[in-house]
Amino acid sequence: MANHPIRIAVDAMGGDYAPQDIVEGALQGARVHGVEVLLVGQPDRIEVELKKHDTQGVTYRVVPASEVIEMGESPATGLRKKKDASIIVTAKCVKDGEAQGMVAAGSTGAAMGAATLYVGRIPGVERPAIGVLLPSPSTPCLLIDAGANADCTPEMLVQFAVMGNIYMANVHQVAKPRVGLLNIGEEDGKGNVFAHQAFEALEKDGRFAFAGNVEGRDLFNGGADVAVTDGFTGNVALKSAEGVMKMFSTVLKREMKRSLLTLAGGALLKPAFDSAKKLVDPEEVGGSLLFGIKGVCVISHGGSHALGVQNAIRVAKEAIVADVLGKISDQIREGIEIHEHVSETI
Amino acid sequence: MANHPIRIAVDAMGGDYAPQDIVEGALQGARVHGVEVLLVGQPDRIEVELKKHDTQGVTYRVVPASEVIEMGESPATGLRKKKDASIIVTAKCVKDGEAQGMVAAGSTGAAMGAATLYVGRIPGVERPAIGVLLPSPSTPCLLIDAGANADCTPEMLVQFAVMGNIYMANVHQVAKPRVGLLNIGEEDGKGNVFAHQAFEALEKDGRFAFAGNVEGRDLFNGGADVAVTDGFTGNVALKSAEGVMKMFSTVLKREMKRSLLTLAGGALLKPAFDSAKKLVDPEEVGGSLLFGIKGVCVISHGGSHALGVQNAIRVAKEAIVADVLGKISDQIREGIEIHEHVSETI
Repeated sequence: MANHPIRIAVDAMGGDYAPQDIVEGALQGARVHGVEVLLVGQPDRIEVELKKHDTQGVTYRVVPASEVIEMGESPATGLRKKKDASIIVTAKCVKDGEAQGMVAAGSTGAAMGAATLYVGRIPGVERPAIGVLLPSPSTPCLLIDAGANADCTPEMLVQFAVMGNIYMANVHQVAKPRVGLLNIGEEDGKGNVFAHQAFEALEKDGRFAFAGNVEGRDLFNGGADVAVTDGFTGNVALKSAEGVMKMFSTVLKREMKRSLLTLAGGALLKPAFDSAKKLVDPEEVGGSLLFGIKGVCVISHGGSHALGVQNAIRVAKEAIVADVLGKISDQIREGIEIHEHVSETI
Repeated sequence: MANHPIRIAVDAMGGDYAPQDIVEGALQGARVHGVEVLLVGQPDRIEVELKKHDTQGVTYRVVPASEVIEMGESPATGLRKKKDASIIVTAKCVKDGEAQGMVAAGSTGAAMGAATLYVGRIPGVERPAIGVLLPSPSTPCLLIDAGANADCTPEMLVQFAVMGNIYMANVHQVAKPRVGLLNIGEEDGKGNVFAHQAFEALEKDGRFAFAGNVEGRDLFNGGADVAVTDGFTGNVALKSAEGVMKMFSTVLKREMKRSLLTLAGGALLKPAFDSAKKLVDPEEVGGSLLFGIKGVCVISHGGSHALGVQNAIRVAKEAIVADVLGKISDQIREGIEIHEHVSETI
C-alpha cells in the first residue's frame, strides 16, 4: 500500500462553498483517511485557502484548471465550451490514472457528464446510475438509480442490481444483500407494465439474491439492502423523503417556539436530535456514487461543507479499497458472456 | 338543507379496528358534523357497538350486509364472490341515492372496485384516481393519483388536474390552485418520455393554472396546490415520505431513551411534537378521496381509529357541500365537447 498510495482528485471549484470548504474538507479527508488528494482548480484561489490550514503530514497536489462550470449552467453546454473546466480536469486525472477516484460537489449533471465522457463506462455497462445510501434504524439501503436515467429498460435495472449488490456486499459487508424492486405493493404481479418486465428480468438473473418487490417505506426500514428502480421513480422517492423531513423539522421548530417549556425541552433533547439527524444529514453521508464508471466517482451535495467533502473522500476510499470497480467489471462481463453463450446455443 | 339531510354510508366492517372503532367514529362524525350516517354491516355486531355509546341526537340507520371482504383477501375475488359484502352494500347505498357519500377503512382495492363497479364513473372520466392531501408548513398539496392507476396516459393526468383543481378551489378555498406535474426537475423539458408528453398535454389544457414541473420536495413545502402524477410514482412518493418519517421517529425515540435529560426534554417538547405530528397523522387527515366516481368516496387508512373515521366523515361532508362532483361533471363534459369540436373542425 505504501508504494501505491490511494489518490483522489477533488474538484476544488464545484459547490456552493467552493473553494474554501472544499479545500478544507479535502485536506481533512486526506489526513483522516490517509489518502493523497489532488486539488483541481484555479491555483491562486486554491493557494489562498491552503494558507489557512496546517497542511503538515497531508499529501496533496494542486492540479490547475482555469474554468468552472457553474451550478445554474447547462451541463451539456458547459462541458462543450469549457474544456479546461475543473470538473473535466478532475475526471481526466482519473482517466490518466493519476487518481483512482474523484469527488465533486458542483453540478450533478456536469459531474455525471464529465465522468461518462472522460473516464468512460465500464465495458458492458449500458448506463451509469446514481446510488444513494438511505438511512434506516437498522441497516442502510442503497437506492439505485436515484436520478441519472429518467427512462430505463429492464436490462438496465438488472445491471443496477448487479452493481448495488457488489457495493453492499463488499463495502458495507452485507453477507447476502437482499435486492428488491421498488414497486407499489409487495405481492408479485404488482405495479405498472415496466415493473412487471423488470421483475421478470431481475428474477431470471442469478448474480444477486432477488427479494421481490419492496415499497417506498421499505427504503427506510431495513426491508431491503438494495432497491433498484428507474431514475425517475428513484429521484421522486428521494426528494419526497427529503421534503417531508424538512417540512416536519420546520413545523417542529415553529411549534417549539410557542412556549418556554417546549423551548427548554428542545434544548434538552438536542443530543438525541443531533444523533437522529446525523442519519439523514448529507454531510455525514458524504455523497452518492456514480456506478458504472471506470473510476470511483463520488457526487456530493451542492451545499457541502468541509465535513461533507471529508466524508465524500471516505466514501471514495472505501470503494477503491474494496475494489468495487474490478468486481463490477467481472460480473458485468460474466453477464455478457452468459448472454452470448445463450444466444449461440439458441 | 333541513329537508335534504346529508347522508353518508359507512362500511362498519372494514378496517383493522372494525366494527368497534368504525361505529364509534361514525357516531362522533354524525354528531360533530351534523350528518346522518348509514352503518353498513352485520346488524348484531353493529348493535353491540351501538349499545356502548350515547346515540341521543345522532341520526343513524343500520343497513344489513352479511359478508366482509378481509384486508388480506384479493379485492377482485372478494367483490366477485361476496355479493353481500359490506363494502358492496355501502357502495349501493350511494348508487341508489340513499347516501351522497361513502366512507371505507377496509381494503383500498375493494373500496375502489366497489365504488367503480357499483357507484360508477362520472361520464367522461377515463379512470378514477386517489387524491391525498399532503401537509406543508403553509398550504397543503393534493397529490393525485396516489395509487389507483399504475399505468396512465397523459390525458388521464389532465383529468386528474381538472378534478384536483376543482377540489382545492372549492373545498380548500385556494383562489387559483397552482397545478404542477410531479417531475425530477423544475425546468421545462425535464423528466422521462411520459413526463414530456404529460407536460405538453397539461400545458395545452385551459381548465386550470398549470404551474409547470414540481419536484418531490415541493409536495411538502407549499410549492404547488395540486401535484398530478401517475399512480405508480404517486404511491412511491407517498410511501417513501411515510417511511422516512417513521424511521426518524423510531431513531429519535431510541436516542431519547439514552439519558434522563433527553427523556425530560422529550416530555417537555411533547406539545410541540403533538402539534407537528398532527399534520402528518392519517387520523387527523381522515382519508383520501377517490375522484371521478358518481358519489363522494373517502378511503381511510386501514388502521383508522374512531378519530380517523370521524374526520373521514368531515372530508366526505366537505366534498358534498361544495358540490365537487357536480363541478367535476361539468368540466369533464366541457373538455369532451371542446375535444369533439376541435375534432369536427379538423
